[in-house]
Amino acid sequence: MARVHTGESALARAVRIVESFGLDDSTLTVSEIARRSGLHIATASRLIEELVGCGWLERENRRVRIGVRLWEVASRASAAVGLREAAMPFMEDLHAVVGQHTQLAVLEGDEVLFIERLTAPGAAINYSRIAGRLPLHASSSGLVLLAYGPVDLQERVMGQPMRAYTDNTIRNARQLRSALAEVRRQGYAFCAGHIYPETTGIAVPIRDAHGAVIAAVALIVPNDDSAYAQIPALQATGRGISRVMASHIRPG
Amino acid sequence: MARVHTGESALARAVRIVESFGLDDSTLTVSEIARRSGLHIATASRLIEELVGCGWLERENRRVRIGVRLWEVASRASAAVGLREAAMPFMEDLHAVVGQHTQLAVLEGDEVLFIERLTAPGAAINYSRIAGRLPLHASSSGLVLLAYGPVDLQERVMGQPMRAYTDNTIRNARQLRSALAEVRRQGYAFCAGHIYPETTGIAVPIRDAHGAVIAAVALIVPNDDSAYAQIPALQATGRGISRVMASHIRPG
Repeated sequence: MARVHTGESALARAVRIVESFGLDDSTLTVSEIARRSGLHIATASRLIEELVGCGWLERENRRVRIGVRLWEVASRASAAVGLREAAMPFMEDLHAVVGQHTQLAVLEGDEVLFIERLTAPGAAINYSRIAGRLPLHASSSGLVLLAYGPVDLQERVMGQPMRAYTDNTIRNARQLRSALAEVRRQGYAFCAGHIYPETTGIAVPIRDAHGAVIAAVALIVPNDDSAYAQIPALQATGRGISRVMASHIRPG
Repeated sequence: MARVHTGESALARAVRIVESFGLDDSTLTVSEIARRSGLHIATASRLIEELVGCGWLERENRRVRIGVRLWEVASRASAAVGLREAAMPFMEDLHAVVGQHTQLAVLEGDEVLFIERLTAPGAAINYSRIAGRLPLHASSSGLVLLAYGPVDLQERVMGQPMRAYTDNTIRNARQLRSALAEVRRQGYAFCAGHIYPETTGIAVPIRDAHGAVIAAVALIVPNDDSAYAQIPALQATGRGISRVMASHIRPG
């Protein structure tokens, strides 16, 4: 990461400054930002100053954080937000009935990006976080998104090393191919102990008006005999969200 | 808005391109973006291309929208997100008990910015939206944020024209000064019919470890005799969220 890019535009540098914040870094110092984005400290300082000026970054004591203004702008029009607004009432109902983690995920690059998560006190443990990512092969949402995703993405994932979180994690192309076929046959992914031994992830697709899979909604429940019983409620949730998404009028 | 700025940095222009998306514009054409941001179409096209390249904007047919990647980056580290994560379990509990709109707001510039909203089927109507704004004088959240906000902000708001949504909206400095004093005395804002005749907004402050007010949590309920009965539950919610926020360790 920490290379100095020459001949790069100021915009590209600013993008790298903003993207140097990770999921666990709510604030960074100017020198941390410079190091992570591979910029000279003077360049980083100047661009940070400009980003603070427009509200996209904020200063907090001697540290810098992402500004509320950037969050506001990003929230206004992103496809993730429309999906989230459509999904939330259904997710809240499911969450109230099941009392376990309920989450909403989309494909972003070659990973699962979680755009919403409802947690419950005493719910089963869960690896995902809002705006967090997981590999496609490991999570139930990932298997759904991959099963209905582009063939070249499937081939790419099958050709890469697959991180094993537990003994049950899918770890090779043969297992993955078989799991994806099962998802397409059943209409859901059921992953008992794939990320933590004690939890089961279950995910179903969300479709647009053309039937294309645009997201997945998932439950994380204890890895025991009761897990299967949650599938129908989750399937109904997926269909409800799909119905709302299919009714959205897209301009243009 | 539509002025051509000369001698401006590419970064400042890119910021205006991203900010040209409004709450009701999920997609825009390149020429709409150019017009709104006051840029020549060639300049706008080039910067849009660069922003699409880094995933901050996305193309959808012949239109452009905010990219999921920008949402992800903004969600990672913004103070709004930490607040939202702390507040959500309490807001869900309140929402489940009261069954009406429950919302979370911060001060952003001279306005209220709503960063979360839980709605209910059949709930009272409500003007606010996620990532939407309202003037400080008009909403219960705004009165709370203003009552505990900087004195210079209070003076500025009192010196400006106040939009009247209904006959009950606060509309002059005398009324506003009296309302702010009442909020500080009671510890909550109670606005019966200030934005819609048929709804009442009730808001309480959320405080950090130092007692500073950092946000407001509000209920929008029908404007009838039952509204007062909701105040204790909302106050308990505000205290719960404050307790979690006060326990957050801030680096630096």
